[in-house]
This record gives sequence, structure tokens and C-alpha cells, in this order.
Amino acid sequence: MSVTAAQGFTAAGVAAGIKASGRKDLALVRNLGPRFDAAGVFTSNRICAAPVTWSRQAIADGRIDAVVLNSGGANACTGVEGFADTHHTAEKVGEELGIAAGDVVVCSTGLIGARLPMDALLTGITTAAADLSADGGLAAAEAIMTTDTRPKEAVRTVDGWTVGGMAKGAGMLAPGLATMLVVITTDAVVPAEDLQSALGAATRVTFDRLDSDGCMSTNDTVVALASGASGITPEATAFLAALTEVCHDLGQQLIGDAEGASHDIAVRVVNAASEDDAVQVARSITGSNLFKCAIFGNDPNWGRVLSALGTTAAAYEPDGVDVSFNGVMVCRGGAIGEPRELVDLHPRAVDVLVDLHAGDAQATVWTNDLTYDYVKENAEYSS
Amino acid sequence: MSVTAAQGFTAAGVAAGIKASGRKDLALVRNLGPRFDAAGVFTSNRICAAPVTWSRQAIADGRIDAVVLNSGGANACTGVEGFADTHHTAEKVGEELGIAAGDVVVCSTGLIGARLPMDALLTGITTAAADLSADGGLAAAEAIMTTDTRPKEAVRTVDGWTVGGMAKGAGMLAPGLATMLVVITTDAVVPAEDLQSALGAATRVTFDRLDSDGCMSTNDTVVALASGASGITPEATAFLAALTEVCHDLGQQLIGDAEGASHDIAVRVVNAASEDDAVQVARSITGSNLFKCAIFGNDPNWGRVLSALGTTAAAYEPDGVDVSFNGVMVCRGGAIGEPRELVDLHPRAVDVLVDLHAGDAQATVWTNDLTYDYVKENAEYSS
Repeated sequence: MSVTAAQGFTAAGVAAGIKASGRKDLALVRNLGPRFDAAGVFTSNRICAAPVTWSRQAIADGRIDAVVLNSGGANACTGVEGFADTHHTAEKVGEELGIAAGDVVVCSTGLIGARLPMDALLTGITTAAADLSADGGLAAAEAIMTTDTRPKEAVRTVDGWTVGGMAKGAGMLAPGLATMLVVITTDAVVPAEDLQSALGAATRVTFDRLDSDGCMSTNDTVVALASGASGITPEATAFLAALTEVCHDLGQQLIGDAEGASHDIAVRVVNAASEDDAVQVARSITGSNLFKCAIFGNDPNWGRVLSALGTTAAAYEPDGVDVSFNGVMVCRGGAIGEPRELVDLHPRAVDVLVDLHAGDAQATVWTNDLTYDYVKENAEYSS
Repeated sequence: MSVTAAQGFTAAGVAAGIKASGRKDLALVRNLGPRFDAAGVFTSNRICAAPVTWSRQAIADGRIDAVVLNSGGANACTGVEGFADTHHTAEKVGEELGIAAGDVVVCSTGLIGARLPMDALLTGITTAAADLSADGGLAAAEAIMTTDTRPKEAVRTVDGWTVGGMAKGAGMLAPGLATMLVVITTDAVVPAEDLQSALGAATRVTFDRLDSDGCMSTNDTVVALASGASGITPEATAFLAALTEVCHDLGQQLIGDAEGASHDIAVRVVNAASEDDAVQVARSITGSNLFKCAIFGNDPNWGRVLSALGTTAAAYEPDGVDVSFNGVMVCRGGAIGEPRELVDLHPRAVDVLVDLHAGDAQATVWTNDLTYDYVKENAEYSS
């Protein structure tokens, strides 16, 4: 159900002919109100795609009526022509739905540095507009897939109101969001300003803590739409909790379907002097190709964890660090701990715990292993 | 000839039984004087190996008589016992050669987090000491190999004095030096203080600009010894030039033999506002797994270059950046340039030129592609 689980939303996903494969490649999500509050979080990459530039402006006034998303092309690094393409896309959606182009968020994903096939895309918008329905959530989630092997959806219902969402993304997943497009809808009454602060808080500890491959996208967009159709105004903490759960659920689905991965790895850093320290240390480990190759080889190579830790400015004493793989403390006090033979890394889920013994802050960053199939997907196909 | 090309040095390389394979694994380099000036540059990793801690202290007074190096174990993250092992190693060399233990640099390379087989190592020192000769350079270069497929040696002779060196390193090659041990010898008369400043300047633009896989080692050591045996005191600029050439030559041999690589990539950033900007941009590109996979796939994917550039704080305008692969400007003004089909990436050497149009500074960082064999080497074998 995803984006159509909450009341007041319709969606559609169609095959517009943008992808050579003929698969679904265009999604449309519409908010029918009565409210049109919206919030967005975008890539921090300074080289950002035309649709990101457009959508940042569109969402600035806190109102969005519809989101159009295409796979099959990122429309990034396409110059003024690319920006005009995004503008035309929004105008076409406006025409079809009888709304202002300036209230349309546009998202694109696919190869950087190529123009979109605009004839196919514009025709697809007409088809999608005619196809909008309260059952369209799954089709929309399918239409935004690129190298994803399955659609990602999540829903939480609490006391009469609902938060639902869809996501795509399987590579170029890194700090400052991941390569992903995410649309979240809710029928709760949440003014745009509150929605923006809740979305920022939720993404900070979910999508922003994914690092599949260290590469930051030009197109990352997370947009949240609130229709108010339930008539219920939730407590801020309850809403944030539900929104964070949906973001976490979608984020875990992204990591679980990352390109070529055979392990999903949670790097938990505990007893850090600050949350920033914990995040910095976790990111240094999730960014290490050697660490990620070791996990692929089912090798609890804690030396590679410590060599990554050593590159950070975090507070710790080198002889005061413990590292555990799946509960076995293979490194104690910065030196040799339990035998590495005790660790079983065959399950897909891997838990790496780093205890800095330097304070009481903590953070988790999620990543994947580095595999033959990751190299294959990213060497043999342009994306 | 490497470390024995300059007058006043002997070397040896023996199989001490540290490596399970039975290959050479212990090297010894001795300076016979008349001078014993020495300089060193070490990893900036805060988690550094016992031999690095030892050698930093040993070299602090500017005098070193011998360097002992072992492959087959890094002696990193081995606690106080590991430091005692390094201390015993230096004492044993001192005994055998009749020199002070405090004038011995110790270098180790191999798996992090395991103790060295000290009986084998100490016996090997006795063998190596007896085997020292002015022809021992190649054997020493062979004895420090880990996953290297060939020994690395370089020599420059200028006006009656010589600079020679040997290096090892094939993975964990990253900013702040690379995973490598390097010994450079010269028979020029160069006081320790001058040797240190020359070594710092030479490594800054050579070894420190290698980034094979983004992973910083715990054991990196570059040590330079000057015997003064030629009796010639070269001009500072001439000495720096020869030293830099030797470092560059060895560095290129490291990149050329990096684990699993099928391409050697030079990322040149030109017309940057500052050298720091140029280095930052080049490192962001050489650190991108997606870029490195694309090169493995012979794909001039300039979108992955721009998405990496976008993560930096360097000065540039997104629509003012040109990117060329092997001389073909596939991205012009931040958008689509020449057809990517014009680029031939089949040769091993790849030149990526990024023109920021923001100043007149430049820098080059060298890296490799990300291949199946890199993953294989680092997943199947602990190192």
C-alpha cells in the first residue's frame, strides 16, 4: 500500500518507455487534501540534478500537491536543457491534474549525464494521471526501481492516522542521504513547518546513517506529504516515532537489497564521547573496502576495524577499544581477544560492536559487504 | 640493486620461517658509514603498530645504523607483548651487528592482530646478519613482499652520488602514505635534519598521493639513510629532485602492482584555486568505488566523477567543470560533452583530467580500478 495507505492519496506507476527494458518507469503520487503540507530533504551533493534544484524551490513554501518520479535517467549534469526538461515535466503534471506546476515535486533516477526521452515521459504522465487510484501504491513503488530487485514499502498506523512510504535505491548509498528517492505520505494533520522538522530528525538517524558504498548521489530526495484527511492532529513525539519507524523500515529495505551484497552489516559504536564521534567512527569502518571484503569472505578481521578507527579524530585510547563481531569480543583493549574462529559470519546479518570506553554516546551506521556482484553490477552497466 | 646501489650499505633477505609459504620474509639493511644520518616518515593512523612506535623513537635523534624488516605479520594491535617483541628484535640486531638497539629501525607488515613467531624471527636475524653483502639489495626487496607480485626497486645516480630504494605494498594504499614499507639509501652527505625535510617534501607529492583502496595502514614507514660514503655534498635542490624521482618511481611500481588491479589511473585536477583543493577533489574521485568499478568495466562514466566532485568543499562552479578521459572531453561545462564512445579505456594506463576553471593550482593522485580480483584477494585471505 505504501504511499496510498494513508487517506487522501492516490498513486500510479506506468511503463512510459523511458527504460529500454519496457518495465514500469514513471510514478505519480497525488495529495487530494484537504491539507497539502509538505517537507523535503535533499542530497547535500553540490553537483545536484535538475529535478533536485526544481523540487527544492517547489517545496520551499510548504505546499506540494503531487510528486512525479521517473527511473531510467537521473537528469543530472544535463545543463539548462535538463532543467527545462524538469520544468516541462512539472507543467505537464500540472495540466493533467489541474494544479500549479510550482506545487509539483519532480524526482529522477538513473544514469547521470544523459537527457531524458521527453516525448515518452510526457505521454507517460498522461497515462499515469488517468491511472491514479487509492490502490496505486505498489505500482508506484515498482515504477521507481532501478537496480532494485524488489519494491520497498512501509506503513505504520497509530490511533486513527497512518504514515506510509515507498523508496528506491540500491547503490550510491552514502552519507548525506543515499541514492534514493523516498515519498512518505500521512493523513495526520501536520503543518508543513512541523513536518519539515520531524522529517529532518527522522532522516538524520535513518537514511543519513546508511552507507552502502560511500558514494553520494546527485539526486537524493526524501519528500513527505500530509493530507490531514484523518482529521487527527497527533502528538509531535508520536508522529516523529511513527515517521522514524517508516524511515528506518525503508532504510533497512534499501540496505537489504543493495547491489550485489551478501551481508547486511550494522556497525554500532558505543560509549563514545559524543554522538558525532560515534558516527565518525562508524562511518570510517563502513567506508573501508578492506573491512567490507573481509565480511564478504566471512572473516572477522578486526585489524581492519581498528585501522579504520585510527583514521578518525574521535576520542579514545588505542589500548582501550573493544571490538565484537556477532557477540564475540575478538579485540579487547586494542589487542587480541577471543579467538576469531568463534565468530560465525555465515548469516546475512552482521553485528559489529565497537566500544570506545570514552563516554556514553552511541550511533549505528548500516552498510553492506563488498562482493564480486557489486563490482559486476557497477562495471558492466552504466548507472 | 636498490638499497645497496649507494656506497656504504649492505643488505640481506632470508627465509626465516615467518611466512607459512617458506618464502623470504626477513630483510636487513646496514649502513657502514662514515655517516649515519637518517630520516623517517610514518603512518598518520592513530592505531599504529608496535614497530612504528619503536622506530619513531629510534629515529628521533637523526641516527640509524640498520633497518630490519619482516613480512608475514604486522605486529599491530598486539598490546605490550607486541611492543616487547619489537624491542627484542632491535636488541637482537644490535647484538649481531655490534650496534646500539636504539639505532635500529624495525618494520613489520602482514596480518594485523597476531603475534609474530619470535623464535623464527630472531634466528632469521642471525642468518641475515651473516648474509649481509653489497649485492643483497634484491634479496632484501624480495623479503619484504606480501601480496606484491614483484619486488620494487629504484636507483638514481647523479654526479658521483646515488639514491636507491626498495618498497613493498599492494593493498591498503591510501592518503597519509600507503600500506608500504620503504627504505631509501644514499651515499651523499646529507645531515639528518636536511634529510628529514627532503624526505617530507618528496613523500608529500609521491607516496602520499597514492590511493589504491582508501584504506590507511597501521604500519606505513618510509625511512631514508645517508652514509656520506661518496664524500659529496649535493645541492639541496639536486638531492631533492633525485630523492623525489626515486620515491615517484617506487610509488608508480606500487600502483602498478596493486591487488587485483587491471588499470592504473592518474586523476589530474588542474586550474584549481589551491593545491589543497586540487588534492581534495582528486582524492574524492580516487575514493569512489563506483568510479573505480566503471574504469574496470572500461566505461568513461563521467557522472561518477562529478558526483564525487560534488561532495568536496573545493572552489568551482558546477557548470564550469570539464572532465576528460584519455584526452576526450566527455563532460564540458558540467554537462554532456564529446560522445563517450570516443574513449578507449582498454589500455592499462588511464588519464582522467578534471579542469575546475577556478585558479592555477594542480595535483595528481594515482589509484587503481576496483575489480573482482581485488575483492577476491581481500575476501579470501586475511591480511
